Amino acid sequence: MGNIIKQLAILGSTGSIGKQTLEVVRALPYRFRIVGLAAGKNIDLLAKQASEFKPRFIYYYPVDSQDKEVPAALADTEYELLSPEDIASHPQVDIVVIATSGRAGLGPTLAAVKAGKTVALANKESLVMAGEIITSEAKRNGAQLLPIDSEHSAIWQCLRGEEQKAVQLILTASGGPFHGYSSAQLEVVTAEQALRHPSWQMGRKVTIDSATLMNKGLEVIEAHWLFDIPIDDIKVLIHPQSIVHSMVEFVDGSVKAQLSYPDMRLPIQYALSYPERLPNPQLPRLNWSNISNLTFEPPDFDAFPCLKLAIEVGKRGGTYPAVLCAADEVAVDLFLSESIRFTDIANLVEQTLEQHQSIVHPTLEEIIAADTWARQKVVATVGANPC
Amino acid sequence: MGNIIKQLAILGSTGSIGKQTLEVVRALPYRFRIVGLAAGKNIDLLAKQASEFKPRFIYYYPVDSQDKEVPAALADTEYELLSPEDIASHPQVDIVVIATSGRAGLGPTLAAVKAGKTVALANKESLVMAGEIITSEAKRNGAQLLPIDSEHSAIWQCLRGEEQKAVQLILTASGGPFHGYSSAQLEVVTAEQALRHPSWQMGRKVTIDSATLMNKGLEVIEAHWLFDIPIDDIKVLIHPQSIVHSMVEFVDGSVKAQLSYPDMRLPIQYALSYPERLPNPQLPRLNWSNISNLTFEPPDFDAFPCLKLAIEVGKRGGTYPAVLCAADEVAVDLFLSESIRFTDIANLVEQTLEQHQSIVHPTLEEIIAADTWARQKVVATVGANPC
Repeated sequence: MGNIIKQLAILGSTGSIGKQTLEVVRALPYRFRIVGLAAGKNIDLLAKQASEFKPRFIYYYPVDSQDKEVPAALADTEYELLSPEDIASHPQVDIVVIATSGRAGLGPTLAAVKAGKTVALANKESLVMAGEIITSEAKRNGAQLLPIDSEHSAIWQCLRGEEQKAVQLILTASGGPFHGYSSAQLEVVTAEQALRHPSWQMGRKVTIDSATLMNKGLEVIEAHWLFDIPIDDIKVLIHPQSIVHSMVEFVDGSVKAQLSYPDMRLPIQYALSYPERLPNPQLPRLNWSNISNLTFEPPDFDAFPCLKLAIEVGKRGGTYPAVLCAADEVAVDLFLSESIRFTDIANLVEQTLEQHQSIVHPTLEEIIAADTWARQKVVATVGANPC
Repeated sequence: MGNIIKQLAILGSTGSIGKQTLEVVRALPYRFRIVGLAAGKNIDLLAKQASEFKPRFIYYYPVDSQDKEVPAALADTEYELLSPEDIASHPQVDIVVIATSGRAGLGPTLAAVKAGKTVALANKESLVMAGEIITSEAKRNGAQLLPIDSEHSAIWQCLRGEEQKAVQLILTASGGPFHGYSSAQLEVVTAEQALRHPSWQMGRKVTIDSATLMNKGLEVIEAHWLFDIPIDDIKVLIHPQSIVHSMVEFVDGSVKAQLSYPDMRLPIQYALSYPERLPNPQLPRLNWSNISNLTFEPPDFDAFPCLKLAIEVGKRGGTYPAVLCAADEVAVDLFLSESIRFTDIANLVEQTLEQHQSIVHPTLEEIIAADTWARQKVVATVGANPC
């Protein structure tokens, strides 16, 4: 491989994954160069990042609004203003890191895939909503889809060098802050409690999704598309220590697992450096004198119905997954703003799915229409039945 | 790969690994054909195996003795009588399974390696005694050394597809029947107790070696030669459930582990079918509803000094490892015949090592001379100080 410097664009650079991606780049400056950064409304942090990493291309939201003035924080920075899609498909970019959450990742992911880029994907909603389109476009254009999620990175690492497909994927889940809670206990938990994840430091949306286990359900669908494995052959196990990040079972009954402390910088770095592994003193090594016990148990589908809903939706396909994602995104926002209870998230998602007319093998437009429909539906439902 | 039939020779076909190798071949007759069988004194079982698998070449011990008559059990069998070395290097043999225990594996292993064969190695003593010679001959002659030991198979599976060396190997050990015993408690254990291994069904020699942890020490040295890793980068962890068979740590801090029930047929089959994995309904799949807890702890080097001795000897090299193996083999025999106590095994091995003058980079003859010296020394020591 030699010491080729890979040129990166990070979409969502001011979020949790974006910031940790920049930490990896900072630790390995001789291997990676930032050529593009795109962020939402945190212009101050984006400006700081731009001044440190000197990207050629920048996008900030709302760049398309009436306000054409350059934000003060970026006034002294030299850059070319491009849309996320244009950054993702620019010839100077080798790897596009999709670190946005929710639907915002879909357009840039598709643009990157169509341009045949290597796409390091932290955004799971894109694959959940449009897995069929994204994976077939990736195949057609020779684009590589590399997972950044710790579970999918674990599976990808375990599959490395194996010539045959897995017969089963075992996704582990920490169980979140409410592991062991009953449905009745879950009715009264607060957003503050839900945001206190026991093992992972993550963004707000994915932290709530971890508490409902919706996140694990979305990961099942994501794994289905990434590794071309039927949903029925993907199992979920609760593993509160978050050391085993997932496992793969092969046709001879052998199982491989990937282990490390819960630190997103490892799966990020693995995706960026692949096929190489690079030493990085900032990445912690497992200390076996502190790891005496790894436990595994089946998930409680009754107390955490979001997991069941997502797996069911994964099997049904069509526009159901888009509705699942959209309804969940709105419901999580409503929970965070204390407009609904924790258990209402699953109820709202389920009600929305029940009212949806799914389309088989949908186009991108149909997926986006289903997403929009679901968002409006959730808002209307809550408006009609305020808590 | 297609469905090529691989031609196998099994040296030690009537022992534990030999019989399980034949079980694998019986389950996958369309992929493997037995062309050679060699065994010790269990001629009746060898004859049964020969009548079922119809090998072209057979060896039975003591074929070189005065008794030139064909054993009655083999009278009706058609075969060519060849030495283990000639079977191991015969042009019709693709894979040689070295399933003998102790020093007996050394000659055939070297013969197979010099003939450029694929060698599936269950005998750890060969590599421990003559690792430098065997691995350099394998390199020179393009022979492949494939591990059958479950720990080394686990490491090999975890290394699959990785382009860089591991930074650490973590060998797991069940801890054996005396896990948690103090030195004082170990003074009075019987051979019968020592033969009752909690998780593995194995031959008598390796079962006692598992009880003293000498087996794990030999495995450390074996791993050093198989994977070209310094002894200092090989760690041992006690894992009583025997589900995680070993682990590998990479330069980025990521750890991979291989898991399965303790069943030697999996590592045997993996070595035979490699690079393919084959479905075999006889191999059990992990049932995660029965696996709730995997525990890990450091070994007790004080209660189990054989482990420490072996690791130390592995670092020193020369003819020390041959002396370790030979002294241990005789001491285990003496323990099984109730001539010495369990704790005397380590004492005898240590005393013998202390009196040995090691030779650096020894020739095969020097290794065998050290082995013979050590055997005589142990017998003389016990004769001078009977229990």
